[in-house]
Amino acid sequence: MNTDSRVAIIGASGYSGEELVRLLLRHPHAKLTAVSSRQYAGQSIASVFPKFTGIPGAELLFIPSTTEAIIQSGANTALLALPHGVAHEFAAPLLQAGLNVIDLSADFRIKNINTYAEFYGEAHHAPELCSTSVYGLAEIHTDAIRTASLIACPGCYPTSILLPLIPFLKEGLLDPTSIIVSSMSGVSGAGRNAKLDYLYVECNESVRSYGVPKHRHLAEIEQELSLAAGQPVTISFTPHLIPVNRGIHTTISALPTPNTTAATLEAAWQKAYAHRPFVRILPSPALPDTKNVTGTNFCDIAFRLDPRTGRILILSAEDNLIKGASGQAIQCLNLLNGWNETAGLL
Amino acid sequence: MNTDSRVAIIGASGYSGEELVRLLLRHPHAKLTAVSSRQYAGQSIASVFPKFTGIPGAELLFIPSTTEAIIQSGANTALLALPHGVAHEFAAPLLQAGLNVIDLSADFRIKNINTYAEFYGEAHHAPELCSTSVYGLAEIHTDAIRTASLIACPGCYPTSILLPLIPFLKEGLLDPTSIIVSSMSGVSGAGRNAKLDYLYVECNESVRSYGVPKHRHLAEIEQELSLAAGQPVTISFTPHLIPVNRGIHTTISALPTPNTTAATLEAAWQKAYAHRPFVRILPSPALPDTKNVTGTNFCDIAFRLDPRTGRILILSAEDNLIKGASGQAIQCLNLLNGWNETAGLL
Amino acid sequence: MNTDSRVAIIGASGYSGEELVRLLLRHPHAKLTAVSSRQYAGQSIASVFPKFTGIPGAELLFIPSTTEAIIQSGANTALLALPHGVAHEFAAPLLQAGLNVIDLSADFRIKNINTYAEFYGEAHHAPELCSTSVYGLAEIHTDAIRTASLIACPGCYPTSILLPLIPFLKEGLLDPTSIIVSSMSGVSGAGRNAKLDYLYVECNESVRSYGVPKHRHLAEIEQELSLAAGQPVTISFTPHLIPVNRGIHTTISALPTPNTTAATLEAAWQKAYAHRPFVRILPSPALPDTKNVTGTNFCDIAFRLDPRTGRILILSAEDNLIKGASGQAIQCLNLLNGWNETAGLL
Amino acid sequence: MNTDSRVAIIGASGYSGEELVRLLLRHPHAKLTAVSSRQYAGQSIASVFPKFTGIPGAELLFIPSTTEAIIQSGANTALLALPHGVAHEFAAPLLQAGLNVIDLSADFRIKNINTYAEFYGEAHHAPELCSTSVYGLAEIHTDAIRTASLIACPGCYPTSILLPLIPFLKEGLLDPTSIIVSSMSGVSGAGRNAKLDYLYVECNESVRSYGVPKHRHLAEIEQELSLAAGQPVTISFTPHLIPVNRGIHTTISALPTPNTTAATLEAAWQKAYAHRPFVRILPSPALPDTKNVTGTNFCDIAFRLDPRTGRILILSAEDNLIKGASGQAIQCLNLLNGWNETAGLL
Repeated sequence: MNTDSRVAIIGASGYSGEELVRLLLRHPHAKLTAVSSRQYAGQSIASVFPKFTGIPGAELLFIPSTTEAIIQSGANTALLALPHGVAHEFAAPLLQAGLNVIDLSADFRIKNINTYAEFYGEAHHAPELCSTSVYGLAEIHTDAIRTASLIACPGCYPTSILLPLIPFLKEGLLDPTSIIVSSMSGVSGAGRNAKLDYLYVECNESVRSYGVPKHRHLAEIEQELSLAAGQPVTISFTPHLIPVNRGIHTTISALPTPNTTAATLEAAWQKAYAHRPFVRILPSPALPDTKNVTGTNFCDIAFRLDPRTGRILILSAEDNLIKGASGQAIQCLNLLNGWNETAGLL
Repeated sequence: MNTDSRVAIIGASGYSGEELVRLLLRHPHAKLTAVSSRQYAGQSIASVFPKFTGIPGAELLFIPSTTEAIIQSGANTALLALPHGVAHEFAAPLLQAGLNVIDLSADFRIKNINTYAEFYGEAHHAPELCSTSVYGLAEIHTDAIRTASLIACPGCYPTSILLPLIPFLKEGLLDPTSIIVSSMSGVSGAGRNAKLDYLYVECNESVRSYGVPKHRHLAEIEQELSLAAGQPVTISFTPHLIPVNRGIHTTISALPTPNTTAATLEAAWQKAYAHRPFVRILPSPALPDTKNVTGTNFCDIAFRLDPRTGRILILSAEDNLIKGASGQAIQCLNLLNGWNETAGLL
Repeated sequence: MNTDSRVAIIGASGYSGEELVRLLLRHPHAKLTAVSSRQYAGQSIASVFPKFTGIPGAELLFIPSTTEAIIQSGANTALLALPHGVAHEFAAPLLQAGLNVIDLSADFRIKNINTYAEFYGEAHHAPELCSTSVYGLAEIHTDAIRTASLIACPGCYPTSILLPLIPFLKEGLLDPTSIIVSSMSGVSGAGRNAKLDYLYVECNESVRSYGVPKHRHLAEIEQELSLAAGQPVTISFTPHLIPVNRGIHTTISALPTPNTTAATLEAAWQKAYAHRPFVRILPSPALPDTKNVTGTNFCDIAFRLDPRTGRILILSAEDNLIKGASGQAIQCLNLLNGWNETAGLL
Repeated sequence: MNTDSRVAIIGASGYSGEELVRLLLRHPHAKLTAVSSRQYAGQSIASVFPKFTGIPGAELLFIPSTTEAIIQSGANTALLALPHGVAHEFAAPLLQAGLNVIDLSADFRIKNINTYAEFYGEAHHAPELCSTSVYGLAEIHTDAIRTASLIACPGCYPTSILLPLIPFLKEGLLDPTSIIVSSMSGVSGAGRNAKLDYLYVECNESVRSYGVPKHRHLAEIEQELSLAAGQPVTISFTPHLIPVNRGIHTTISALPTPNTTAATLEAAWQKAYAHRPFVRILPSPALPDTKNVTGTNFCDIAFRLDPRTGRILILSAEDNLIKGASGQAIQCLNLLNGWNETAGLL
């Protein structure tokens, strides 16, 4: 167990960065030693996020978002809450300076840099790091996360899709060619960006799909599903924007393989998650509801067999900013430091 | 063209009944001669629905919900906005008294009374009427509606699913065994019922599926899809409750048949809807958004071919209380009376 | 009655402009001959506002926002839905070209140009027009509106405050020094502007006051209250932003003058509004609720005497974009043209 | 410091009870030994509130809501989250059995039992306890709370009104006859009750006042203001229901006494709250926003002098279920046991 943990957050002014700040200010082991922002350097956490005023530690001042400033802060772990394409630039110098890096962007999630270029529309700037980064899906790559120096935290949609599917694919219970996913996300998933599409009036009393049929998150989803299935997996994925601040609900339809039963499905999930604190297999008749997971690091999952169609219906719910971003990053930080996986997260 | 149209609404105190009142008070041809309610008999429309105060006609008093009172009101058409299982009792005597009946419940939608019993959990009380009723999906059964005496208006989810799918199935463009549907509905779909599940605090900042895997609407959806496909069709259907007052968004995945192309799909929709006023085929890159249809009788539809999976993604949006209920009932009323299909609906 | 009414909307791309388009497309007498926008010139109404697709008239193309283009369109009335400070520039040339002008901005509401400069932070560019403009509070300045050439439509908050207060002040029923107003507005009141403050996530699950203690609308509110009271009136006004798309609720506290009773208050309102279609005096025990007025041109009002404090509580509700903006503009257009005041508004 | 704290929650199935459970499950010193409910006896916390599944302690089973069961549970402190009129019955036997009682209902807030009867419409059943109960406004009656055996936690609106006003009245800075209050509350304030008025569709896109002009909370508000002012105080109070789950925003207008200045006002607040952890005096130009306090035990306050009217505008924001109910109860529990006031609340 690492008792010397000084953590810096780079790019702490977005919604994920704000959640990282919140979680780290109350973390029992990690010490938040630096927060950086191009925009807010010199201001305190409390002045940038008034809701943290009065919380011990909120008097910390933002520093500039430069690798030099981060390194000088004395942090031994850097959490990057930056847009994709920007995290690229920070990881290498921080790693070279001996820091561990936990990146919340997409930059180090994709192992195949051609796939990265295809989905993100630009060449990768630090391809050499993609082979050493660990995909930070905490329940799946647990051991690799414990010893990683560069952790790429999964996207919000991917977490809600991969957690229920991977155990089924690993056990060969699903036909990997049959997977169809429909997800709904709260508006915080779009980030704190002043765009007309995300104005209150444009989102309230509205539901719409977007990014179809080739959303960027497909790159990492299919990478990890393929790894679990032991064969290339391609899926259909339709994301929707709904008027909630937080929460992702995912609905998956898939065909079982011949000998799959409710019991084998249940067993696969129990094997994967019965001893893990943050994935909750809901007892029937409960179904996932985002209001039971928002504000938490839990991902709730349930399935139903449909005797009429022979298909399996799989449902999940998570908080997109916590289990889908900042909470999972802290979970990885806990694993990396040998702390209790739930430290600061319950 | 019928110039003598006196319309009664039976059970006008729910959300669909309220919308019927709103639409009929401003209808250029129909005259609202009676509204009935067990609960509100003797009170005026304006006192039950304060928002209609000052609208000409809102001084009309509710009468009791008895067939005698309806018949005595002089109405020649009765719109039933009653729960399923109750509409049963009203239709036969009203028809015998010479009224036309437009029913918004599920009671006369299902042709096969065994299917009705299976999905609704009770025997049908007026099975003889099920063979003569016309399924009031206005764009599909147009001619039959014009000459019907008993019209069974489609459910809210079915309308959003059937309108985009039927032209494709009629033209043989989709594999009818491959259809997977995920829908999201606003809370008004649950009716004006004082239940904990539909309290503001339970629905706001919440998304959840329900009624899986065998929602009652499957009975009519599969009946009509089978009719269009010329073979029995079974589908997967997952409804979700989302925090909006109104609106349904439906997302459908299906496999094309071998020669299907974007052009043949587009052509099938154009053939079906280019000359119909209420189904809007969205030009790319637009995607359906419930905020563009709430308050209207429109259903917006769009599709995308996914070259990665070979599947077709079909999207639709409607107002569950209008195109999914009361607006479609008025559209049927217009057809039945030989009026312009859009009368009172634009 | 003017049977030749060709109307142009200048600056039709904001929320008020969009409502003007909606109302004029269904108006029985006015013909929408031009819509202008710097941003959308050349595009159709339907492409800019997809929700209007299929409505007759929505194929009209936006023209540039220049006075020349407006004049050439053949319109005889121009509705200006422009920011304050911009409407200034358009009014004079349009008036000179013989058009009537109905302005929805603040530019011609304030008779005293020093007050304008004090509250809006810049000198008025067309001060000569301020003496001839008519403040378009339709129920109060009815006769002047009928013969005006330049009508300055009231702001959204002012309408909700002035309608209930003016009859009381005219009759000397309130102490004009005692008026304290608290209002709540939906987010559409902030306009279609891409600002962080109005993002969904920043407004949902949030309530906050703003613009205190000297909101710009005080200039016109106090001008009109002073006119009604026959003496200068200064009030306290606190606006709040609440998470609804539309609607303003106003709560006013004031002291009665010595002989004021519930009966004299009621009589003052009845005298002012009993024969006017859009102000509804709610019968006890009803209280204004924005959901009863959103989507309509109604303003609902109620009062209560508080025997404990001796004060009068006055409550009102309206749709900020309709009675508080576009609907009132159409109401003025109706008066100006000698049409039924409710034309196109019920 | 009391190191032996076993706490029972009586009536834990409403929204306040749920929050008490959440706060006590993570409290560093208190041990939740019993939760009771008529409805849920025998079920676990996790099954009644699925969102607590996986939180240590959530396996605790509900016991029946009887004083015997509570006493047998071994608890030494009982938190009553019961409707007013019911808490009456529980307090005396629990106190006699030696437990401390913290009541969240109105039953022991009102010292004058005639006032209780006037505002609550029934005679008090345990009037002898009203003289010994301590009003649990934690920042104001701090010392009395430390030694109390029966604590009556303030209502949600009263907390938001009393915290900003009491220091001003104590210092004689306000004219106590001039106070006018307008508050807005989230829907959770209405409790988890299946009533039509609180359905999602009835509350969403709606704002309305209610309970005017004599809301029950006036009884305790005026009691405490009178105590602070040293003279009887009567105020105007208008509560409103707005579409948020949580949060109260209060807007107060009052007249200053002759020598009052911004500096004396600021000084009064600093004296009262500078060293208290949960009342945050916002630095200008910040104004209270409920989104900064929901989920926390903070109450944010700010004031503005209005040179135009000579009045003072006072604003506050809190979470109605936390600082306005359960959080304040835990704050009282902390004081009562000699723990850090913030234990379990940051």
